[in-house]
Amino acid sequence: MSIIAMSGGVGGAKLVSGLAQNLAGDELLVVANTADDFDHLGLRICPDLDSVMYALAGINDQQRGWGLADESWQAMRALQRLGGANWFQLGDQDLATHILRSDQLRNGVSLTAVTESLCSALGIACRLIPMTEDPVATVVDTEEGKLAFQEYFVKRQCEPAVKGFEFTGIELATANPEWLEAMRSGQAKALIICPSNPYVSVDPMLNLPGVRTAIAGLSCPVVAVSPIIAGAAIKGPAAKMMRELGCPNSALAVAEHYKGLVTDFVIDNADRKLVKDIEALGMRVHCCDSLMRNAEDRSRLAAEVLAMCETAVAA
Amino acid sequence: MSIIAMSGGVGGAKLVSGLAQNLAGDELLVVANTADDFDHLGLRICPDLDSVMYALAGINDQQRGWGLADESWQAMRALQRLGGANWFQLGDQDLATHILRSDQLRNGVSLTAVTESLCSALGIACRLIPMTEDPVATVVDTEEGKLAFQEYFVKRQCEPAVKGFEFTGIELATANPEWLEAMRSGQAKALIICPSNPYVSVDPMLNLPGVRTAIAGLSCPVVAVSPIIAGAAIKGPAAKMMRELGCPNSALAVAEHYKGLVTDFVIDNADRKLVKDIEALGMRVHCCDSLMRNAEDRSRLAAEVLAMCETAVAA
Repeated sequence: MSIIAMSGGVGGAKLVSGLAQNLAGDELLVVANTADDFDHLGLRICPDLDSVMYALAGINDQQRGWGLADESWQAMRALQRLGGANWFQLGDQDLATHILRSDQLRNGVSLTAVTESLCSALGIACRLIPMTEDPVATVVDTEEGKLAFQEYFVKRQCEPAVKGFEFTGIELATANPEWLEAMRSGQAKALIICPSNPYVSVDPMLNLPGVRTAIAGLSCPVVAVSPIIAGAAIKGPAAKMMRELGCPNSALAVAEHYKGLVTDFVIDNADRKLVKDIEALGMRVHCCDSLMRNAEDRSRLAAEVLAMCETAVAA
Repeated sequence: MSIIAMSGGVGGAKLVSGLAQNLAGDELLVVANTADDFDHLGLRICPDLDSVMYALAGINDQQRGWGLADESWQAMRALQRLGGANWFQLGDQDLATHILRSDQLRNGVSLTAVTESLCSALGIACRLIPMTEDPVATVVDTEEGKLAFQEYFVKRQCEPAVKGFEFTGIELATANPEWLEAMRSGQAKALIICPSNPYVSVDPMLNLPGVRTAIAGLSCPVVAVSPIIAGAAIKGPAAKMMRELGCPNSALAVAEHYKGLVTDFVIDNADRKLVKDIEALGMRVHCCDSLMRNAEDRSRLAAEVLAMCETAVAA
C-alpha cells in the first residue's frame, strides 16, 4: 500500500473513486467511517462503507448522491403497506447488500471480511476496510437533546441545531489493525483525508485509540482536502454544523480542525484568500479546482492531490 | 369462530380466499402450516402463511401461483451480483414481509402476533394463525438422502424420488392454543382441510400433539377437499409424491390418508367413479367442480363446501 485514504460518505467517496482511477489496486487502502452504521429492521446498514464501495464499483447514483444507480423502491412501498418504518429509504438493490452483510455478520464473519467479499464480487481492485470492527455510534447533541446519527441525519433531515458530538463506544474500539499497520509500516506515501464532514465522518476515525499517534508518526505527507468550498458544503450538513458550533463555515475552520495533524491542505481556487491564514496554522496549502462534478473532475483532483504528495516529499 | 380452515400454500390459499368471501371476518379461523418455514439469508420465510395472507389480501400473483402480483426482482439481481445465494427467489415486495417479520421475531414478538399485525395492515378481516410458534421443519427423505424441505422443493425442484417425510421438532411443538381452543370450544361449525398437499402441508398440522385428538372430539363436520383431480395435482408435487410412495395418485388415496379423521370428502366431478370406494372408507362424498381457476370458482367452491357442511349437520 502506498496511499491510505480516510473517507466518510458521498464527498469522500468521490475522491476515493478518483484515487482508484489513478492508482493500481494494491497501491490504495481506503478506510471508511463506520460511526454512522446502525441497525434498522434487523439489517446492519453501513452508509459510508457502501457509498465508497458503490462509487468504487461505478454503480452509485450520481444524481441522487447516495445509493445505487437505476434503483427501484418496491420493497419500501411494500414495507409501507405493511406498516413498517419507512423513514430510512432502502432501495431494492441496496437491500441485497444489507441482507447479505447482516446475514454474514450474524454468522460471525467480520465486517472487514464481508466488505472484502462484497468488493470482490463488484470487481473492486483496491482495498476497502471499515475503520473498526467494534460498534461505534455517533450521537448528535442537539438543542432538542441527543439524537442517534441517522435519526438526526435522515429522520430529522439535520434540522435540529447541533451542540456537539459523541462517539459512543470509541474508547473501547480498536482501529482496524490493517490500517494501523499500514500507517506504522513506513511504506505509506501519503495519508489522504478525503473531503468528508470533519465532525461526523472524519473525527470518529481520528478519535479511535492509537490513530492520532500513528498519524503523528508518519513521515509521509498527511493531506486533507477541504469539504468546504467558498463557505458551503457540497453536500451534507457540514457548513450548517459549523455555523451552529460557532465556527466560521469556511475552509479555514476545517484547517484549524486538523491543525497539528495534517501537513498539506487542499482548498478550492475560490478560497485563495485563505492561503495565508491556513499557512499560519503550519500547513502547506494547495489551491485547485476541487469541485467534483463528474468522473473527469474526480480523476483530475485525485491526480493533482497525488502529484502534490510527490512534490511535498521532494520538497 | 364458526369455521376452522387448515391450509398449506397455494391450493389451500385459494379455498381460504373463497371462504373469506363467504364468511364474516369473525366467522373464519385459518390455521397455516409452518413446517416449510426456514431461515434464508437471515430472514424467516413462511411460505404457506404468506401464500394464504397474500391470497386473503387479494395481492397474490395468480399467474405465477406464488408470491405477490406486480412483483419485481431487483434485489434478487443485486444479490446475484454480490455472489449471494439466489436459488430461492425473493421478490422485492415480498422481501418487505420477510424483513419486517424477521425483525419482529428477533425482537421477541410471536409469529402469531407478527402475522396478526401484517394481516391487519393488509386489511384482512378473518383470523390467520400459524399452526405453532415452535420450530417444526419438514425433512424429505429421498433416494438421494434427507433434504430440508425448501432444498427439495425449490433448489431441487422436487426432482429426487421421495421415500418419506419427517417433521423435526414436532413432538416438542405446541399446537397454536387458539386453534386447539377453537376446536375444543364446541363452537366450530366445520373444520375444513383445504386442498393442500396431504404429506407436506396437512400432515405437519395433523401430527402436532393434541390435534388429532381435538379433531376426533369435534361434533361438527370435518371436511377435506381433495387436492388431486383426475389423478393430477393442480399445483405442486402431491401426485408425484404419491406415485413415489407407492400410492395410486388419486383422490381415493387422499381419502385413505384421512380415513378415520374426516367425515366429509369433496372430490371433483371428474372423479365420480371413486364415490363408492371413498364412501367405503366411512365418509360422505360430495362431487362438485373443484378446480379453482379464478375468484368466482374459489367463491363458488367455498360456498358449496359451506352449504355441504350445513347439510351434513342437518343430516
